Formats: sequence, structure tokens, C-alpha cells
Amino acid sequence: MLHSLSGRAESAMQARLLTVLRDQGPLPRTALADRLQVSRTTIAAEVGRLSEIGLTQETGPAQSRGGRRSTMVALADDIRFVGIAIGATGTTVGVTDGRLDVLRTEKVDCRIDMGPDLVLRAALDHVRRLLDELGVERPMGVGVGVPGPVDFGRGVSVAPPLMPGWDGYPVRDTVSRELGCPAVLDNDVNVMAVGELHAGVARHARDFLFVKIGTGIGCGVVVDGELYRGVNGCAGDIGHIQVRGDGRRCVCGNTDCLEAYAGGAALARDATEAAERGRSAVLADLLAEHGLLRACDVGTAVARGDLAAATLLRESGQRVGEVVAGLVSFFNPGLIVIGGRVSGLGHALLAEIRGTAYQRSLPLATGNLPIVLSELVDAGGVIGASRLVSAEVFAPAVAT
Amino acid sequence: MLHSLSGRAESAMQARLLTVLRDQGPLPRTALADRLQVSRTTIAAEVGRLSEIGLTQETGPAQSRGGRRSTMVALADDIRFVGIAIGATGTTVGVTDGRLDVLRTEKVDCRIDMGPDLVLRAALDHVRRLLDELGVERPMGVGVGVPGPVDFGRGVSVAPPLMPGWDGYPVRDTVSRELGCPAVLDNDVNVMAVGELHAGVARHARDFLFVKIGTGIGCGVVVDGELYRGVNGCAGDIGHIQVRGDGRRCVCGNTDCLEAYAGGAALARDATEAAERGRSAVLADLLAEHGLLRACDVGTAVARGDLAAATLLRESGQRVGEVVAGLVSFFNPGLIVIGGRVSGLGHALLAEIRGTAYQRSLPLATGNLPIVLSELVDAGGVIGASRLVSAEVFAPAVAT
Repeated sequence: MLHSLSGRAESAMQARLLTVLRDQGPLPRTALADRLQVSRTTIAAEVGRLSEIGLTQETGPAQSRGGRRSTMVALADDIRFVGIAIGATGTTVGVTDGRLDVLRTEKVDCRIDMGPDLVLRAALDHVRRLLDELGVERPMGVGVGVPGPVDFGRGVSVAPPLMPGWDGYPVRDTVSRELGCPAVLDNDVNVMAVGELHAGVARHARDFLFVKIGTGIGCGVVVDGELYRGVNGCAGDIGHIQVRGDGRRCVCGNTDCLEAYAGGAALARDATEAAERGRSAVLADLLAEHGLLRACDVGTAVARGDLAAATLLRESGQRVGEVVAGLVSFFNPGLIVIGGRVSGLGHALLAEIRGTAYQRSLPLATGNLPIVLSELVDAGGVIGASRLVSAEVFAPAVAT
Repeated sequence: MLHSLSGRAESAMQARLLTVLRDQGPLPRTALADRLQVSRTTIAAEVGRLSEIGLTQETGPAQSRGGRRSTMVALADDIRFVGIAIGATGTTVGVTDGRLDVLRTEKVDCRIDMGPDLVLRAALDHVRRLLDELGVERPMGVGVGVPGPVDFGRGVSVAPPLMPGWDGYPVRDTVSRELGCPAVLDNDVNVMAVGELHAGVARHARDFLFVKIGTGIGCGVVVDGELYRGVNGCAGDIGHIQVRGDGRRCVCGNTDCLEAYAGGAALARDATEAAERGRSAVLADLLAEHGLLRACDVGTAVARGDLAAATLLRESGQRVGEVVAGLVSFFNPGLIVIGGRVSGLGHALLAEIRGTAYQRSLPLATGNLPIVLSELVDAGGVIGASRLVSAEVFAPAVAT
């Protein structure tokens, strides 16, 4: 029943119309005309054209108790986007409709250091199964996030420190070819930030930061409702900002990087050391049980009342808070969203980040600054990746 | 001969036209039509209207050796803007033409802690004299920069730590009333950043940072060719970012702020200490000679081969470099311009900032990142302030 779609917007006007329908639709034609500040005749003509190429549908006047009502316009029911959010220790794939509501999502266990061939194959296998189950022949686009720097224009990942085999790998073109649709590639943090902008706590924010604390630490920067990527696409790489420390060496070769003290990898390492040196019986038990410790084990130990684990979590939060304080002074954002797997360790971490950031920043910048946890969890990456490719698909092929 | 001007742009099209003429004019009508992507008829009509209200003038076809040439259009010859750049230890005032070329500029000795009444009176006295000398009855607008946070919307300075008496003072409205023209108020660093964008080394940059090292330290943030002010207008307040240190107390109440170690005030204080404790004979001589030491004395001592002074300058540069490295990781700018009075101490300081910033940032972000000294010196603030108010004057009174 669902047919394949190859239509794309033909003009800037159509692109704006599709974007409004994606973010605020379905809407009556009259409301569309108001929002785009054009006549109803123009809207009727453009919607007619978009319906012909399979991008919108008109659902007829809504049921009325009297007065005549305007025809409702919606994105076509059968539009499907795919989001693939690749993390250091696992991938989340999902399928959304045109409004980017997640229809189906799934987690795939695989480590980024298995290399691009295996990681992408696993992700694509799961995507194909989800599409099958949903009866989708071909999605309209696929967005991909990877946990490292990306050359956005070329669609390849670049010299990623934790990702052997990924340097220069044509992720975008591979995924596009395999699924037979347009694809975009961005780093995982940008993708998650866009997810927050679309469906998360940052829905109504214009200038905000999304700080991801996973195995590594990164930051998505949104300026005036748009992702800011920097001139080389590596804006937000805050994991290697210097913090006060004891000269600890980071994987990047520098010393005292934030990531050398905070984030999932640092927590796991420090927890293992605490367990092995007899500073925490709880962590030692968990180590004996699992064979190795991960960041989530620190959370478990904290929940069991372990003091050493609580100290680790607090110190990690303080380091993140120091860097966040600097970003607040520099960027004066309206909102900071904390996400990523380690942020799942909860409010103790958030409390430290907040405490340090508020204390270190000037009152003018922090007076009304909410620092909150993301509520999207894994869906954020899928929604953000879908949104990035939807913008690509909805953009006109030629400028008008 | 010069008459007073009260005309303002009447539409978004006129505003774009005036901006193109300000930044790239004079231009033939044909070139204007190309740049604004409208017909020559439209350009002719709009220019005609702007000439009627005294904002543009047509200079007739340029001399030709044969073929007919398009009529040249320029901003009206008699447009004058005033820029007032107030610093912690002195003010620079200037008058520009419509293209923001500085016609006359003057320095006014006065300290910001003399309070707004005295500082503004001194600045306005000098402005009036310059206007008199130039035969200007009334300028078209005046831009003002002050060395502290500003509520841009209300045009008042806000709780400035170094500026007793300025908190909530209606700087914008006072200056507007005194000179009888529209005024804008921004902080000095933003004003200087805009000056660099208009006429400095950042002329062709879209995303850059302007780091001002004066008595204090601040940063102007330009995103996609526009000043980024942050949600409360205090973006770029980097003087209170925490650096590695010995717990030194800052005037803001926190410890280890960048300004507690670097910038003019810190240099002057550390130089005085070095002189008093016998660590530098040259600085001790300068102290005996002047009664007090300023940042520029450190430069003098360095030029005389004083080791203690060179160390002070180097350490100051390293601290600034640390913070700049963090900004590079976060913001991935295409250019960093270093300005302000202390930057006048020269290339030794710049070398330290560069060395530390390049070493601490990831290769992807610093591969093509120039870190350069401003070449505008005092004119930067005047040009930037004039540009800010020109944008206000050229903007249409009602949206079209």
C-alpha cells in the first residue's frame, strides 16, 4: 500500500511550507497562508503541487458544527525517515513519520571500534527489519550520527580518536546507497541537539547548548534555532578543553583535558582503580561480578550508598560544571540541556554541574539559566538525525 | 551648507540598498540591481525615493570613453555618524561619513570611575567641537561603547564592576537627546568587533572572535557576519572564565578568573609588586619616575630587556591562550583578532597566546586558524559604534 516517494520540494516556498507542516502541522490552509504570509490562492496552488508529488495531503474540511471550515493540510501519511544514532558502545536506529514522531526504535549492541563495515551493517540490518515490519519500501531520507568529528560537506568521518577505521570512511554515501534515499551525516552530539530542538526540552529555545556526557563529552551549539557547526564543522568539541588537574594525560596527547577526568571512560577507569586499590568494597564486588566496570556501575554503587563512587560522580560533575561555567560566560545561552548515557546516572551529577556552573558564572548570565536533563534519552538521536535529513529533502533542489 | 537629516529607510528593500552602499558603494545602478536581485526599474524608483529624503545621491554617468555607462549611486555626501568608544582609562570620539570612513577622531583623557555625568560630558564636548569643525549641524546617529555589560534593548549599562555610578544609567537616551539623533549603546568589545568586521582584518570573515585585552578582558562573537550577543546580551564575558592558578581572588568575588592574572589591571598590579619586592630594577625605576605603574610600563621594561617584565607578559599571554584554546574548541572560529591597549605591547604577547592556543586545541580546529593583532587601534571602536547606529538608522521603521 505504501509507495516509494522520490518527490522533493521545488521552491523555497514549498520548502517553508513543508517545514511548517513538519513542525506544526496538520494545519488549515488559512493558517498556512497566515504563517507564510502569502495568499490562500498561492497556498492552494503550492499544496496542490506538493500533493501531486506525494509530499502533502489534504484531508478535507474538518467536521464542523456549523460554519464552513478551511481544508486541513498535512504531510503525506506515508512519509518515512530513518534515524541512525551511532554511539561509542551501541547504536539506536528508528523510523519516523513526516512530523518526526518515532514509529519504531531499536537498540543495537555494537562497539564503534568494531569498525565502520560491521557497525553500519548491523545498523542497516535492523533498519531494514523495522522498515519491513512497517511496510515501507523506501524511506524518504536517512540521517546518521557518529561519535566523532565529521566533514559535513563530504559526509565522511574525520580522524576520530576513538574510532579506528572510520577516518575518511564514506558513511553518508554508503548508507544512502544501501537504503536508496538521500542521507546526511553529522556527529552524534549535533544530532542529539537537533533532537532536543525538535521534540525535547529545547523546543522553544533559540540559543541553547546540549552537553552530551557519554564515553566522551561534547556539546551541540544552537544559535537562533539553527545548529552552529563552526568553520570546520568541529564546534562544540569541549571534551578537550583544559580543566584544573594534576597533569593527567588524555588520549588526544594533551594533559588535563575535561575527558581525562569526566565522562564515561574516565569514570570507568577511576572506578576500576578504586575497586582494585581497596577504596570501595561495592565497586570491588561489581568488578568481580562483571569482569570489568563501566560508568553505569558507578551509578549502581552510588545507589548502594558507596562513598567512593559518590565522590567520583561528584568530582566528574564539578569538572563538567567548570567547563560549562566557561561556556556560559562566553556564549550566554538561554538553556543548557545535559544528555548522554552518563547523564542517566541522575540528579547527583546534575546537582554538581549546576552548583559549579552557577557559582562560577556572572549573575547576569545565570539569572534565568535553566540547566536541565534531557528527557528524550535514546529517541533524541533518532529524531535529530531524521530532522537533519528532512531539511535536506525539503530543501529545494535549486534556489528560487 | 550641510543640512540636518532626518530621513530613514522606509522598507526592507531600501535598508538593503543603503547597507550595500555603505559597505560596497558607490555603485552603478546596474550593479545594485544585480546585488539586490531586483530589476533596474525597481532600483531607479527606490534610489529616487532615497535621494528625495536625503539618504542617497546620483552622481550621473561616470566619464566614459565611448559606450554609455550606468548612473553611479552613492550614499549622500553629507551623512555623518558619530562614534564614542569609552574605555576604562580614556575615550575615543570620532565622526564618520556614510561609508564609515573616519573623518576626524580625537582621544579624551578620562577614567570611567569618574562616573557617567563627567565622562559623557567630556565626550560630548569633544564630539560637538569635531562636528563644528566639520560644519555638521546634526549627525544622523551616534553609537556608544562602554567597558562593561549593557542592556542593549533598554540602552543602559548594567551593574558594571569597574564603573561606579553607571548601573542603570540611561547612556543611550542621554546621548541621543544631547546630539538630537538616534543612538545605540553596546559594550566596548562588541563595538570593536563590529569595527573589525567593517574595516579591519575580519572584513572577509563570517565567524570570528575579537579578543580585547585592555584593563579587563572581553570577547566579541560574530556568527555568520552578525554580532552574537547571547540571551542577556552578555556573551563574550571571558574575563571571568576560570584558569589554572593559585586561588587568586578576582574583583568579581570568584577566584582564579582570567582577569585576576591577565589584562592591564593584573599586569599593572604584578609589575608594582615586582618593583616593590626588588625583583626588577627597571620597573622600580619606572615606579619611582611615575609614582605608579601601568600595563604600558611593562612594555617599556620589556623593551629595556627586563626579565621580570618579560615573564609577566609571557605568563599573561599564556593565561589568555589557555582561555582562547577553550574558545577554539567550543566555537571553531575562522579567525581570532586580538585587540585592546595591552595588545599594543606587541608580538611577544601574541606569540604566547598563539603558542598556547595552538598547542591546546585540536588540529582540525586550528589547521587554518589565523590569530592576528588588530590593525585598527583606536579607530576600531569609532567605526564599530558608527556601524551599529547606521544599521539602526538604515533599518525600516516598520517591517515590510
